Amino acid sequence: MMDPLFVNALEKVCGAKSIRAAEDLAMQDYGFHAENLGATCAVRPTSTAQVSDILKLCNRFGVSVVPQGGLTGLAGGAVSNAGQVIVSSARLLGEIEIDPVNRIAHVAAGTTLEALDHEAHKHGLCAGIDIGARATATIGGMIATNAGGSEAFRNGIMRNRVLGLEAVSATGIVMSDLKRVTKANEGIDVKQLFIGSEGTLGVITRAVLRLAPAPGICCTFIASFADTITALNMFHTLNAMSFARLLRAEIMWRDYAVQTAMALGLQTVLPAPDRAVHVAFEMEPLDGSVDTFLESLAEQLDKAGCEDVIVAQNDRERNNIWKVREDSWALEKTFSNNFWYDVSLPHSMLDRYVTHTKNALGKLHPSIRTFVMGHLGDGNLHLTISGDAEIGPLHAAISDIVYNGLAQSGASFSAEHGIGIEKRPDLERFGDAGKLTLMRMIKSGLDPNGIMNPGKVIKQHP
Amino acid sequence: MMDPLFVNALEKVCGAKSIRAAEDLAMQDYGFHAENLGATCAVRPTSTAQVSDILKLCNRFGVSVVPQGGLTGLAGGAVSNAGQVIVSSARLLGEIEIDPVNRIAHVAAGTTLEALDHEAHKHGLCAGIDIGARATATIGGMIATNAGGSEAFRNGIMRNRVLGLEAVSATGIVMSDLKRVTKANEGIDVKQLFIGSEGTLGVITRAVLRLAPAPGICCTFIASFADTITALNMFHTLNAMSFARLLRAEIMWRDYAVQTAMALGLQTVLPAPDRAVHVAFEMEPLDGSVDTFLESLAEQLDKAGCEDVIVAQNDRERNNIWKVREDSWALEKTFSNNFWYDVSLPHSMLDRYVTHTKNALGKLHPSIRTFVMGHLGDGNLHLTISGDAEIGPLHAAISDIVYNGLAQSGASFSAEHGIGIEKRPDLERFGDAGKLTLMRMIKSGLDPNGIMNPGKVIKQHP
Repeated sequence: MMDPLFVNALEKVCGAKSIRAAEDLAMQDYGFHAENLGATCAVRPTSTAQVSDILKLCNRFGVSVVPQGGLTGLAGGAVSNAGQVIVSSARLLGEIEIDPVNRIAHVAAGTTLEALDHEAHKHGLCAGIDIGARATATIGGMIATNAGGSEAFRNGIMRNRVLGLEAVSATGIVMSDLKRVTKANEGIDVKQLFIGSEGTLGVITRAVLRLAPAPGICCTFIASFADTITALNMFHTLNAMSFARLLRAEIMWRDYAVQTAMALGLQTVLPAPDRAVHVAFEMEPLDGSVDTFLESLAEQLDKAGCEDVIVAQNDRERNNIWKVREDSWALEKTFSNNFWYDVSLPHSMLDRYVTHTKNALGKLHPSIRTFVMGHLGDGNLHLTISGDAEIGPLHAAISDIVYNGLAQSGASFSAEHGIGIEKRPDLERFGDAGKLTLMRMIKSGLDPNGIMNPGKVIKQHP
Repeated sequence: MMDPLFVNALEKVCGAKSIRAAEDLAMQDYGFHAENLGATCAVRPTSTAQVSDILKLCNRFGVSVVPQGGLTGLAGGAVSNAGQVIVSSARLLGEIEIDPVNRIAHVAAGTTLEALDHEAHKHGLCAGIDIGARATATIGGMIATNAGGSEAFRNGIMRNRVLGLEAVSATGIVMSDLKRVTKANEGIDVKQLFIGSEGTLGVITRAVLRLAPAPGICCTFIASFADTITALNMFHTLNAMSFARLLRAEIMWRDYAVQTAMALGLQTVLPAPDRAVHVAFEMEPLDGSVDTFLESLAEQLDKAGCEDVIVAQNDRERNNIWKVREDSWALEKTFSNNFWYDVSLPHSMLDRYVTHTKNALGKLHPSIRTFVMGHLGDGNLHLTISGDAEIGPLHAAISDIVYNGLAQSGASFSAEHGIGIEKRPDLERFGDAGKLTLMRMIKSGLDPNGIMNPGKVIKQHP
């Protein structure tokens, strides 16, 4: 199915051993999407030069390329088809260099977030970004998708963590811009294009990342609130505390919290299950003991009239809180016909948006249940819409309701999971027309043969 | 000199009143560069649609465009020549919208930093970015040049402050991506290209910016240190304090500090003039009184063995400290034949770099004096190299020494002032070859007729 001349040339570039045929791929773990490993073959280069040679070959032979990292993406950006070549970062490894004085790391694209964090912790530092898929997600993939996660409200998204980048563009041009400084105005900042472009412009090979101080002892607690506005006020109070650092603030609306807790058999996690919203907070006391911090915390909660709080007393209780928040798949046990959304809104819109969306969806079909949770600090909400079999054909109508008014008010229909293939129609619909035109011009300029991850994010020719 | 048909069409787009001819321009303040107003005419559009129409006209008539903001750029990015049209943001104004709940501002490109800060302060907020030219620098210009300044170590550079952007690309395409959220992964992030591209890709018209809490009462103090390493340790100690927020940390090496203070008649500002480095700190006590903070501060300084400190007792003393740091032009009174550099380095390199550079320059020519100051938090140094008339022809050799080793070690030869025309040869020399190629591909893709700020940053065709 693939030109033997091409396969031969590929073998010459990186050795027969680094190439896997379709039948081998079928036996591998495909990650989040069953269609991830549909390509005719996968190649696992070990160097930037090999990546460049591979992309040049692919241009010459007209073979299209799907770059892959840890296969944890949720939007289908790594899905591959027959006739395509996967370029995997699995062997783009090498030393994880931690520079503790300057608080930066220099890593290869195939490094997992967990591996980086592990090395950083040896120096009292951490990656400063965290996502559920930390064990398998690669730094290359996290940069390509501009990962977000639960610490973004404090440390920024992946784009803000990247100081330097090495990448190979679609036509095989190697850009090695491995800066280790915050300020570097050296012309058009090309690396910004690769960040978040989901493999449509090239392959990321190395990066210099900013690190953050690793938190010491942490206190995890969960509080139930009568409404979103009270929860937000508490968030601002805790975030402005001088004697403790707010690390996470993860919000769950009642339906999500209660149903997930039940599915996991962890109902006792919720202080007051009937309250409208529940927020899991994690804080690091800065001065003095945990006890002193807990006293001050109790005072603050008291002042705010917030009585429904459970402080985790040990690791088990702490893990249970995070299980309820992170294991959104538990909903699948109880509910089916699920549609997933990933939006972000300014704080002031959160309350009205959730209420309005739930109501409108309820009116659309009586079987619809709306489960909402997310990252309170940056207003990033994950919605799961479930219902009976009848809601299948209502997908478009559901999307209309979930997305209603977002674009006009500076909110986003696609917060942290990216576009991939799943949200391409949404991008065509809600993306600014001028921006889409410029995206196509950039894509055509850097990838004239359209070999990089075609069909993902945007159609090159509308 | 300009096609009357073109001028006619221009008048139709934005009215004769918004066009200024060369003779009028000659009477205007040209800002930092005497050559800024060399264009044949300047047009001052009042809307994004007008900007788009102007750029389409310029493409049709083959007239090149120089976008201009407050004319405070130091690298010549706004220099214009006969035959060119200036597109000024002077009338891209309108309401400065402050959204205090979400802590963001929505402003037009012609808004000055000072005007934005003034409005933000009414809500207890500030821009979170500060540069010396605050009174005249425009938000559009600061985005186009990705401004840095003294708060970047804490709040990030301009790129990190921009949530949403509206811009008109070279061919007149309007991109309106006015997001108000941190997380928005909606395909290739085109706005990142406009940020820092110094008007070579289009004209910025509006932006949504992140704001920061305005500091309350501040303490300003200046400390003298025996070496850079001790100064850096103090920086880290102060930056990690939980009871006060470090706002600024501006470093001056002895020669700079002493000579500027003398030129300004402010010698008493320096605690111990003979020490190697002097750092002006500004901190905001978070809890309790200024007195409590000063006591804790005294303890910290004591622990570090730092005895040479002067705390500003009033606004006059505070202003005098900042005068010595900010009025680098005072050096011009005493020294001539000055060459200016703007580099940034990882903290660990600072000490060795300054020592090595001074020594090497001293060996190059005995008349050379090296004055160094900058932003300690992000390692951004501004160097002024002075000497007698003989050093004129040594410019290239001086640059070689100042830039020696920077590119290889992840440092930058161009930190915050940008490339403009001044540093174009340096970019050609030190920029990564692959990155330069990609820059040209992007520029050609978005500006096929090469009308946007030609000759700035990079030659479109090498």
